[in-house]
Amino acid sequence: MNTLEVTYKEAYAIVQMNRGKVNAINFEMVQDLRDIFAKLEANPEVKGVILTGQPHYFSAGLDLIELFQYDKTQMTDFFVSFGALYLELVQFKKPFISAITGHSPAGGCVLAVTCDNRYMADGDNYVIGLNEVAVNIQISQNLTEVYAFWMGEGLASRYIMEGKLLSGKEALAAGLVDELVPLENVLERAETKMLQYMQADQEILVNTKAKLRKHLFNKLDLRAENSLKEANELWWKPEIRAKMKAYVESFSNKKKV
Amino acid sequence: MNTLEVTYKEAYAIVQMNRGKVNAINFEMVQDLRDIFAKLEANPEVKGVILTGQPHYFSAGLDLIELFQYDKTQMTDFFVSFGALYLELVQFKKPFISAITGHSPAGGCVLAVTCDNRYMADGDNYVIGLNEVAVNIQISQNLTEVYAFWMGEGLASRYIMEGKLLSGKEALAAGLVDELVPLENVLERAETKMLQYMQADQEILVNTKAKLRKHLFNKLDLRAENSLKEANELWWKPEIRAKMKAYVESFSNKKKV
Amino acid sequence: MNTLEVTYKEAYAIVQMNRGKVNAINFEMVQDLRDIFAKLEANPEVKGVILTGQPHYFSAGLDLIELFQYDKTQMTDFFVSFGALYLELVQFKKPFISAITGHSPAGGCVLAVTCDNRYMADGDNYVIGLNEVAVNIQISQNLTEVYAFWMGEGLASRYIMEGKLLSGKEALAAGLVDELVPLENVLERAETKMLQYMQADQEILVNTKAKLRKHLFNKLDLRAENSLKEANELWWKPEIRAKMKAYVESFSNKKKV
Repeated sequence: MNTLEVTYKEAYAIVQMNRGKVNAINFEMVQDLRDIFAKLEANPEVKGVILTGQPHYFSAGLDLIELFQYDKTQMTDFFVSFGALYLELVQFKKPFISAITGHSPAGGCVLAVTCDNRYMADGDNYVIGLNEVAVNIQISQNLTEVYAFWMGEGLASRYIMEGKLLSGKEALAAGLVDELVPLENVLERAETKMLQYMQADQEILVNTKAKLRKHLFNKLDLRAENSLKEANELWWKPEIRAKMKAYVESFSNKKKV
Repeated sequence: MNTLEVTYKEAYAIVQMNRGKVNAINFEMVQDLRDIFAKLEANPEVKGVILTGQPHYFSAGLDLIELFQYDKTQMTDFFVSFGALYLELVQFKKPFISAITGHSPAGGCVLAVTCDNRYMADGDNYVIGLNEVAVNIQISQNLTEVYAFWMGEGLASRYIMEGKLLSGKEALAAGLVDELVPLENVLERAETKMLQYMQADQEILVNTKAKLRKHLFNKLDLRAENSLKEANELWWKPEIRAKMKAYVESFSNKKKV
Repeated sequence: MNTLEVTYKEAYAIVQMNRGKVNAINFEMVQDLRDIFAKLEANPEVKGVILTGQPHYFSAGLDLIELFQYDKTQMTDFFVSFGALYLELVQFKKPFISAITGHSPAGGCVLAVTCDNRYMADGDNYVIGLNEVAVNIQISQNLTEVYAFWMGEGLASRYIMEGKLLSGKEALAAGLVDELVPLENVLERAETKMLQYMQADQEILVNTKAKLRKHLFNKLDLRAENSLKEANELWWKPEIRAKMKAYVESFSNKKKV
């Protein structure tokens, strides 16, 4: 797998996103994540999974520079596959923890909110949040549900409508992350939590997780081809396309400097 | 419209309640609010609405002195119309913000909770809350849903059973208001927020708001004639009628002093 | 009733659990609680109920030492009856308050979360929480619902998966208790709250409580024989049985010292 590194510990696995410095999400990375999580779900030796990123960036979200080049077929494939990945992660049956090593906006936050626990690097103005409104991407119904699960409907409503990126402290106050930890300890903190989970009877733990997400699952549209259909349609809206173009160009120019 | 003043800005409208010093809600005011919000919803030039009140009073709630004089037909008309207004405001599709310029108990709070954001005047012991239990009015199922949407079921349950009026600080802690702002800046703060909303793609914003309220809408009884039926029946219960009479008389006497 | 003492005040009743120093819950105590609450629900003179415990222990939860001796029939009877008690308390129609006089883990917390208000003794490291995962008991779907009702789905999810016991301060922050009060004032505080409820129109109050719990009731499986079926099956799982045996023996040894 080009975009991930997987480490197997005695009873759990660590999946590190490993695509450049910022872990921008493209089609290949989505496929790699879907493949590895399907394997980890099926592997009885693996009792839990930690997802982590690169120093300073858990994931910068969707790779808009690459996605902007996709034709309509590619973009549809991307959205269907990303919608499926999200559903698979939300429904992952075993304990699942994010070690958020830095920024985690938009698509980065999408991955993180599927987990049972989130430990986030403190300091350096790292941000996290579903800021889709601010970047002209249509958020899916499925995604709003999980945000509301963690922070309540009221705060989820206010933050999603604003397209807000939260500081670590704001994310902690909102219940979006469990703890703020110095960057160099984020993975270790996640592993300590995982070892705590490993003390429990695993049958009871998996049953319990399923119960805790029962109503969430009932709210989700499990058809991946539906969940980002609207996002896909609005992606090609001329005004939005123009804004995306300006954004991609400004960003490409910055990279050249 | 006798009870409202409407100001049209470039892309949004400000509706100021304007019925005496305290904006007590009578049948006429309910009708005026229903009329103006229907027009604003239909007007494509208007991308959002701010609702505000008078200095020190957003709205004191239902005009119990006038309502106490209504006969059974008038009272039924009032409750059906007020229930309908509430449903129309909750379902208002565009960004909708309250600039809460002071006290906002009971019916005043009913209006405010339908909004996407609430900025409340700080200081002077301004209070807000659904204190129906304390004033012997039967709260509707529809109203409990929106309170729980903003503050969670647990806190909504405790506060509604108590009939509690919240100070600004309590309302902020509960998620019932977004920010406390000096009285003279409340409207300005709401306008700044509205201008922020205007930066977003309006199609995406309206879609997003609908998604965020989907489950809330599923919980509501959309038949306005049903939602306050129980309140209407209990309004005429002799013990409650006697308490209301004592309250109205004490209040009328105060006004004469 | 061997395990309870009931005091009738002018308009409400106080039920004090009275089984040893720690109020460990056995079959007899469950039956006593079911009997008394059925009577109190039916008694029109009783407008509300306060449940309280012994100094330092509201209830230590299930009496694992006694339960460990139960045969399969006895254990099935226990779980069905305990599941029924929980459902009856959650659905108790009148105002219902817990005066939590100390520790309240697992089964003790199960009783407390059914109430409308919880006042907890401050100090002495008293703990409360649904720590079933940590003690190898399968939590029921019905129980997760009420925890989420009070603290939101996100926090309930994190705390239940962890099997966490909360300090008073953590419980207060989570919305699991309303206030921390010195031990000697806990019951008095609950009574003051009850007297406040007695000021309201009781018909309105009972209606209002029913509305506030409507969606909670919709989420519950009201068939008591189902709700703890899974807990009953896992109770007899050999690995769990072995852990329980070790726990019971260590505890019995401690008692002998």
